[in-house]
Amino acid sequence: MNIKIKISLLVFVLVVFSCKEKALVNDEQTGNQGHPSLILTEQGVKEIRANLGSIPIFDKTLAATKQEIDAEIEQGFDVPVPKDYSGGYTHETHKKNYILMQKAGALYQILDDEKYAKFVKDMLFEYAKQYPTWPIHPKPRSYARGKLFWQCLNDSNWLVYTAQAYDCIYNYLTEEERNTLETDLFKPFADYISKENPQFFNRVHNHATWGNAAVGMIALAMDDDELLDRALNGVKDVDFDPNEKDNDGGYIRKDGQQIGFYANVNEPFSPDGYFTEGPYYQRYASYPFLIFAQALQNKKPEHKVFEFKDGVLLKSVNALLNLSDADGEFFLLNDAQKGMSYYNSSLISTVDIGYHFGGNNPGLLSIAKKQGEVTLDDAGLAVALGIKEGKEKPFVKKSIELSDGANGDEGAVGVLRSGGLELVFKYTAHGLSHGHYDKLSYALFDDGDEVVQDYGMARFVNIEQKGGGNYLKENTTWAKQTIAHNTIVQNETSQFQGKYDIGSQYHSNGYIFSVGNDSLQVASAKEENAYPGTKLHRTVVTIKDEDYDKPYVLDIMRVSSQNSNQYDLPFYFLGHIMKTNFEYSKYDVPKILGKSDGYQHLYKEASSTSNGENIQLNWLQNNKFYTYTAVTSNNNEIIFGRIGANDPEFNLRNEQTLILRKKNVNDALFVSTIESHGTYSPVSELAINAYSNIANLSVIHNSKEYTAVLIETNNDKSKVFIISNENNDKDAAHKLAINDKEYTWKGPYILIENK
Amino acid sequence: MNIKIKISLLVFVLVVFSCKEKALVNDEQTGNQGHPSLILTEQGVKEIRANLGSIPIFDKTLAATKQEIDAEIEQGFDVPVPKDYSGGYTHETHKKNYILMQKAGALYQILDDEKYAKFVKDMLFEYAKQYPTWPIHPKPRSYARGKLFWQCLNDSNWLVYTAQAYDCIYNYLTEEERNTLETDLFKPFADYISKENPQFFNRVHNHATWGNAAVGMIALAMDDDELLDRALNGVKDVDFDPNEKDNDGGYIRKDGQQIGFYANVNEPFSPDGYFTEGPYYQRYASYPFLIFAQALQNKKPEHKVFEFKDGVLLKSVNALLNLSDADGEFFLLNDAQKGMSYYNSSLISTVDIGYHFGGNNPGLLSIAKKQGEVTLDDAGLAVALGIKEGKEKPFVKKSIELSDGANGDEGAVGVLRSGGLELVFKYTAHGLSHGHYDKLSYALFDDGDEVVQDYGMARFVNIEQKGGGNYLKENTTWAKQTIAHNTIVQNETSQFQGKYDIGSQYHSNGYIFSVGNDSLQVASAKEENAYPGTKLHRTVVTIKDEDYDKPYVLDIMRVSSQNSNQYDLPFYFLGHIMKTNFEYSKYDVPKILGKSDGYQHLYKEASSTSNGENIQLNWLQNNKFYTYTAVTSNNNEIIFGRIGANDPEFNLRNEQTLILRKKNVNDALFVSTIESHGTYSPVSELAINAYSNIANLSVIHNSKEYTAVLIETNNDKSKVFIISNENNDKDAAHKLAINDKEYTWKGPYILIENK
Repeated sequence: MNIKIKISLLVFVLVVFSCKEKALVNDEQTGNQGHPSLILTEQGVKEIRANLGSIPIFDKTLAATKQEIDAEIEQGFDVPVPKDYSGGYTHETHKKNYILMQKAGALYQILDDEKYAKFVKDMLFEYAKQYPTWPIHPKPRSYARGKLFWQCLNDSNWLVYTAQAYDCIYNYLTEEERNTLETDLFKPFADYISKENPQFFNRVHNHATWGNAAVGMIALAMDDDELLDRALNGVKDVDFDPNEKDNDGGYIRKDGQQIGFYANVNEPFSPDGYFTEGPYYQRYASYPFLIFAQALQNKKPEHKVFEFKDGVLLKSVNALLNLSDADGEFFLLNDAQKGMSYYNSSLISTVDIGYHFGGNNPGLLSIAKKQGEVTLDDAGLAVALGIKEGKEKPFVKKSIELSDGANGDEGAVGVLRSGGLELVFKYTAHGLSHGHYDKLSYALFDDGDEVVQDYGMARFVNIEQKGGGNYLKENTTWAKQTIAHNTIVQNETSQFQGKYDIGSQYHSNGYIFSVGNDSLQVASAKEENAYPGTKLHRTVVTIKDEDYDKPYVLDIMRVSSQNSNQYDLPFYFLGHIMKTNFEYSKYDVPKILGKSDGYQHLYKEASSTSNGENIQLNWLQNNKFYTYTAVTSNNNEIIFGRIGANDPEFNLRNEQTLILRKKNVNDALFVSTIESHGTYSPVSELAINAYSNIANLSVIHNSKEYTAVLIETNNDKSKVFIISNENNDKDAAHKLAINDKEYTWKGPYILIENK
Repeated sequence: MNIKIKISLLVFVLVVFSCKEKALVNDEQTGNQGHPSLILTEQGVKEIRANLGSIPIFDKTLAATKQEIDAEIEQGFDVPVPKDYSGGYTHETHKKNYILMQKAGALYQILDDEKYAKFVKDMLFEYAKQYPTWPIHPKPRSYARGKLFWQCLNDSNWLVYTAQAYDCIYNYLTEEERNTLETDLFKPFADYISKENPQFFNRVHNHATWGNAAVGMIALAMDDDELLDRALNGVKDVDFDPNEKDNDGGYIRKDGQQIGFYANVNEPFSPDGYFTEGPYYQRYASYPFLIFAQALQNKKPEHKVFEFKDGVLLKSVNALLNLSDADGEFFLLNDAQKGMSYYNSSLISTVDIGYHFGGNNPGLLSIAKKQGEVTLDDAGLAVALGIKEGKEKPFVKKSIELSDGANGDEGAVGVLRSGGLELVFKYTAHGLSHGHYDKLSYALFDDGDEVVQDYGMARFVNIEQKGGGNYLKENTTWAKQTIAHNTIVQNETSQFQGKYDIGSQYHSNGYIFSVGNDSLQVASAKEENAYPGTKLHRTVVTIKDEDYDKPYVLDIMRVSSQNSNQYDLPFYFLGHIMKTNFEYSKYDVPKILGKSDGYQHLYKEASSTSNGENIQLNWLQNNKFYTYTAVTSNNNEIIFGRIGANDPEFNLRNEQTLILRKKNVNDALFVSTIESHGTYSPVSELAINAYSNIANLSVIHNSKEYTAVLIETNNDKSKVFIISNENNDKDAAHKLAINDKEYTWKGPYILIENK
C-alpha cells in the first residue's frame, strides 16, 4: 500500500466514522468475538436495553414485533414438507418461519426472555430433523432448485435470516445442540446452495448475492472461516458451461469473471453506487449486501468491507434513494414492478445501516421517520437515538447522474429534477438479465405521479393467479421490447435485435449532464450500437420560463444512419385525451400494429398524416393538464396505439401511446416539448390553465455540428436552444449563423431568450 | 288548521329550534327589517364581531377570504362585454365577479372596512352602466339564453350571489344610488330571467330553482313583495307549449304543474329529502334552495320555509350526505361527474345552514371540520362556535332507504352499508331530464373506492377542450343507455326504449328494505314497466360470515316475461382481471357488440359459452382482490366487453365489463355474489386472501312464489337464502319444502345457516 492510498483511506475512515455513536463502534482490530455479533452486538444489546422506553421509533417497532411474535408463539408453528411454488402454503410458511425466527432472536436479546430463544430453538430443531430427509424441491421450474423452496434463491433468503436468529440464541444453546444444528442443518444447507449449485452461487447476479450472503452469514455465526472464504470468493475449481443460461435468459457466468460476494459488490455497482439492474432489483439485493456487510464489519472489521471499492456499499444507499420519486417510489428501469418504494422492509435495513455505518447523514433520519420503523439492532438504535435527539434533516433529492458499469464508464442514468418534474433518462449498460432494450428512453414524473410512463415489467409478483406470481411471457414479448418504451425503434425491430447476447455487450454514453442552473438543466447521451450503422443522440432539457408556474421539457432525438429506415418514437402518456390540434381517423375496430418485437401487442386505434405543422396532444391525468407538442415533417404518420393485442389472458394494462413515425429516411430529428400546465378539480369543477403555453416549436438549424430549436410561447416571447452535436467540451467556443443572425457561445449548449 | 296539525307543527318547531344559539334566533314575528338581513343579520354581525379571533375555523376562512379579496381589489376588476361559452374569458370573468362581490360584501359587514363596500359598489355600478346596453348573449346553444352568460342559468347564479352583496352594502349606499342600481340593473335583470324567459323560470327543474332563488334573493334585498311572490309562485298567466323541450331533452313543463320556488321544493324532493335527479344535481341545486330559504327565514320568518313539507329542506341535507361514500364522494345516480363530494363549496353552505336551522346536529360539525371552512355568516358562526365548544360527533352513515317522488311513492334509492362495503341500489323514478335508463341497477363501493361502477355522465364539466365542457353526445348515446349500467337489457334495447317520454311516466317499487341485522341486510325491488310484458325483480343482500373479514353481496335478478327474449346483465367491475375459472377466447381484434342503444359503444373482446357451472371472475383494484361468482345455465354466453367503440374523439373511458347473456327464454334468473376478500401490497409484495371464499353457488328452488339460493363456502359451511317473491308481509308465515327438507319462517326472506 503506497502512501497516497493510505492517506485517502484514512480520510475515508475519518469521514465514515467521525460522527458515529462512540459507544457502538466495535474494536476495529478484534471485532466482536462473542455472540451476538452479526447485526446485534454485545455492546449494542447493552445500549439498547439501557435506552428502552425513551427511543420512541425503536420502542414502537419493538412493541409491534413483540405483539406479532407473542401471537405466533401462542399459535405454534409448522414446518411442512416442501411442495408449492410461491403463493402456495409450504412456500409461504417457510418464508414466514425465517422471518419469525429472525425477529424472535432479536427479541430474546433485547428483552432477555427465554421464551423467544426457545421458539427459535424449537423451530430450528424441527428443521434440523426434517432437512436431511428432504429431496430437491419437487417443482421443476428453476435452473437452481432449492430444498425448502422451488429455487435456491428462496433457500438463501431463509439462511440469511436464520443465521441472524442462530447468532442471537447461540449462547442459549448447549455446545451439543449447536453441533447438531450445524451438522444436520446449517452446513449441509450452506453446501447445497453453494457447492451443489455453483450455477447459482458462482455468478454475478442478485441470486448469487443472496447465496453468498447466506453462506457468509451462517459462516460468521458458526465462526467457520472456510465457509466465509467461500462466501467472499466463491466455490473454487468448478467447471462452467459458458452457454448456460438462467430462467430469465441471462448467462450464468462469463469467462474470467470474478465470483463470490466481493465480485458481486464490484461488478454490478458503479463507483457512484448505481446497481446495474436498476433500483427495483437493488432494493431487493440491497438487503443481503448490507446485512452481510454489517455482520462482517461487526465480526471481522479487518475486512473493512464498507471501505471496499471506495465505500461503494454506502454510496449505493444514497444512489438508491435518489432513484425514487417524490413519494419514495422507485423509478422503473428494466424489470420493475410499479409501486415499490423505500417503505419496503428491506429499505429499513438499508437506511438504518446506511446511517449507522455511513457517517450519520441526518437526511436519512427523515426517511427513517417516514418509514416509521427501525431494525431491532445496533443500526436501528443509532437511528432511533438520532431522531430522538432531533438530528433529522430533509432528504433533498436533486438532479443527479449515476454512472453505470463496474468502472463507471458504461453510461449512466440521468435524473433531471425541476419544479416537481422528475425526468429519468436512461443511457446505461444493459442491466444483466433484467435489462430492457430501451436505450435513450425516458419517463416523466410530476409531483410523484408518473405521467409519461415506463411500462415496468409484465409480472404480478407473488400473485399466484397470474402465472404463479412469476414473470409472464409478455415480459419478454412486450415489456422488454423497445416499442414498449419512449425511445426510437428502427424498422419495427427492437434495439440490439432484442437479444441479450448483443445488448449486454454495449452501453450508451453520456454526452452532457449539466444541472448547475435550476432554470436550464440539460442531459444528453448517445447510442451507437443499438442499430448498427445508425447513431442515436438524445438531449432532454428542463426549461423554467419565469412567466409560467412549471418548467417544461424539451426533447431532441437525433437519428442519423447510413441507410434508409423507418423510425418510430412512441410517447406513453398516461391519462385521458382531451384534445389534439390535428385531425385523425379512428378505426371502427382497432388493427394490430405489427407482427413481432412487441408490435404484436399494440392495437392501432387511430392514425393521421402530418401536414408538417406542429402536432399537439392535450391530456388529463390525476387532475392535471398536460400537453405534448412535436415538430413534424410532411407525411409523418401519427398513430394512436393501445396496449393489449395478442394478450389472451388480459395480462397487460390497456394504456395508450402516440407514435410518431418517419418512413424511408436516413436521418431524422424528433423534437418535442412536454408541459404540465394546468389543473382540474372535480370538486370545484374548475379547469385552470387547461391549454399549452407553447405557440410554436421549430427546428431552425440542423447540421452534423449543431441543432437549434426555436420555442415560441404564448407570452409573445421565444427562446432558441442550440446544442453542439459533436463537441461537448465545456470551454469550447462556438459560432453559428442562423437566418442571418449570429450566435456565439461557450460550451456544448446555449439557451438564448428573445424578449 | 286543525289541532292535530298544529301540534305536529309545534313539535317540529321545538325540534328544529330547541338547540339553536339563542342570540341568533331572529324575531319570529317581524323578521329582520334592516340590512343586512339575508345570510347575515344585524344581530349575527354583532355576534361575529364579538367572537372574532376565538373561533378558529371561522377566523381561518375569514383570513383566507380577506387575503383573496384584498389581492383582487389591488388588481382591479373587469366587466367585459359578454361573448364566450363556459371556459372562455367573459364567462369566467363574470362568474368570478359575482363570487368576489358576495365575499367582499360579507367582509364589509364583518370587518367594517369601507374599501370592501366600495369594491362592490364600483362593480355594481359598472354592471348597471353596461347591462342595459347588452343584447341577448351571442352564443346560441341554450333554450334560454342569458345576457351575461350563454344561458339564463348562469345569469341566475350571478344574481343569487350579487343579491347577497347588495344586501351587505345596502346601508352604505345612498337612496339615489340604490335607485339607480335597482332601476338599471336588478329589476330588469330579474324580469329578464323570469318574465322574459318563462320557459326557464316556470319549470320544476334545477334551472328554475336557480331562477326562482335569484329573483327571490334580490326581492328580499330590495324589499319588493311583488317580485318575491313571483319567485315563490312563478310568473303567472304565461302560455306554454307542452311539447317544448330543453337542451337535455327534458320537457319544459307539463300541464297542471305548479311553478315557483315552492313547487321546486315540493316536486323534486321526496318526503325523505331525496332529490329526484340524484345527489350530483342536488349538490348543485342545494345552494339556491338553502341560501334562499335561509334569507327568507331571516327576513320573512312568517313564511316558515324550513317547515314547508314537513321540513323537507332540512331533511334533504341529511339525505344528500347519506348519498356519499366513505370519502364523501357522491354516489353516481343519473347524470353525475365522478369525484364530486361534500367538499364542494355549495356543501359548505348546505352543512352550515343544515346545522344552524336544523337543530344543531353535532354530526354535521364533523363534516364541517373536514371541509375546513365555514360560510361567513350567521350559520357559519354557529358551526364555528359548535366546533370550538367541542360539540362535534362523527357523522355516521348507516344503511338507508330514501323514497323518491313528491309524495314518496315513486320508488326509492336503497343503500346497504356493511363492513366498508356500500351498495347503492336504484329503484327510483326517472330523475327528470338528467335521468338514466337503468332501473334496478346498482353500484358497489369498498372503503370509498368504486369497484363495480356506474359510468356516470359523459361530460367533462368546464373542460372546454371536451365539447366546451358541456354534455357530450356520448352522454345520450352511451351513458344514459341501459347497457352502460349494471342491470338487465332485454333484446339489446334500453329500458323504456331509452325514451324520456316513456321513462318519465314510471318508477320502480321497493319490495323489501330490511337492515336491522347488520349481518344480513336485504333490499329488494321490482320494475314492471321498463319492458312491457316483462317483470324484473332484483334482490341484493349483504351477508356477514363470521369466518371472513368482509361481508359479501348476494345478487338475485329474476326476470319473467310473456315472450321469449334475450337478456343481458352487464357487470362493470373496475380493475385488472387476475383470473377466471372458465376458458374464453379473446379475438385477434375486438368486434363491436351491437348497433344501437349503447351497444355500438362496446367492443366485444372475448367470449365464452357456459357449461352450466358457476363462473368466477377474480380481479384486482386499488390493491384489493375481488371475486364475482355467478350461477349460469348451459349455453349462456359470457362476453368480455370494453367501452370505446364508435368514440371518434376518445370521449369515453375504456373500462371493461363482463356480460352474462341468456338467449331465447321467457324467464331468467341471474344469481351472483361479489366478494372483497383480499389485499395486495406492491411494497411488501404480499398477496393476502387472493382467492374467493365461495365454493359453489346454486339455485335450489325457483318458483313464482319463492327463490332459494344455496351458498357453499370454503369453510365447509353453507347457507340457504330464501325469498318470498310475492308476499312481502313482515308477519306472513311461509313453509317450503326443498329437496325433502322443510323450511318454515316468518317474513319475506330467511337465511338458514348449515354448519
